[in-house]
Amino acid sequence: MKKGYRFEIELIHKLWEIGFAAVRTPASGVMSYPCPDIIAGNGRIYLAIEVKMRSSLPLYLSKVEVNGLKEFAEMFGAKPLVALKVKGLGWRLFTLDMLVESGGSYRIDENTFYRGFDFDELKGLKQLRLSN
Amino acid sequence: MKKGYRFEIELIHKLWEIGFAAVRTPASGVMSYPCPDIIAGNGRIYLAIEVKMRSSLPLYLSKVEVNGLKEFAEMFGAKPLVALKVKGLGWRLFTLDMLVESGGSYRIDENTFYRGFDFDELKGLKQLRLSN
Repeated sequence: MKKGYRFEIELIHKLWEIGFAAVRTPASGVMSYPCPDIIAGNGRIYLAIEVKMRSSLPLYLSKVEVNGLKEFAEMFGAKPLVALKVKGLGWRLFTLDMLVESGGSYRIDENTFYRGFDFDELKGLKQLRLSN
Repeated sequence: MKKGYRFEIELIHKLWEIGFAAVRTPASGVMSYPCPDIIAGNGRIYLAIEVKMRSSLPLYLSKVEVNGLKEFAEMFGAKPLVALKVKGLGWRLFTLDMLVESGGSYRIDENTFYRGFDFDELKGLKQLRLSN
């Protein structure tokens, strides 16, 4: 079992637990269309999620990857999110405007990480930032 | 390449052509949640699609399969559809109320098939039936 796959599955379980129907999508490369790792919906909010795991920060995301996610999400009608699990720190979720532009890529460093939101916000307990 | 896979890919291409961001989902069995073959959205309409191919009619669908599709679609916030390609007759799309209950399962026979809608209806050219 590939490592990325395991973290996607973990996230899928979390999403179902908080009332989202969520699916993984197959590994990219087969087709030429942009495609996030996970798509989820709860009848009100739709999410297109890129899933990442790192043993330490920062995380760098290529512009191609971020733009692909944005393009897919706009066309589908979903909120684009990056879900990042850092070893020892757990999961946080990020909207694309939270990413820090850094040369030719985007970055999530420690400052950004702690501003990321948690699953309670997806549940609607603290929905203000997500609905922006 | 599995046969079912090829027809899913064909449908994915058709959906992108008419303005839907569409993804296949991995073969079922890995996770215990209901999951359609394809999920698509165009920012206004969201679709959860079960994909079938037959060399001849009728098509039978188990209640378990149809109920799983319905359950997923309701939770996600999508319109549940069955996409059926019949050899020599092409593709048609069906909402669940168009399926004929038949003993312990659902059926699409010739009469039903020709009442199925086509991709023009998804494009919004004839949206009345779909938005019901």
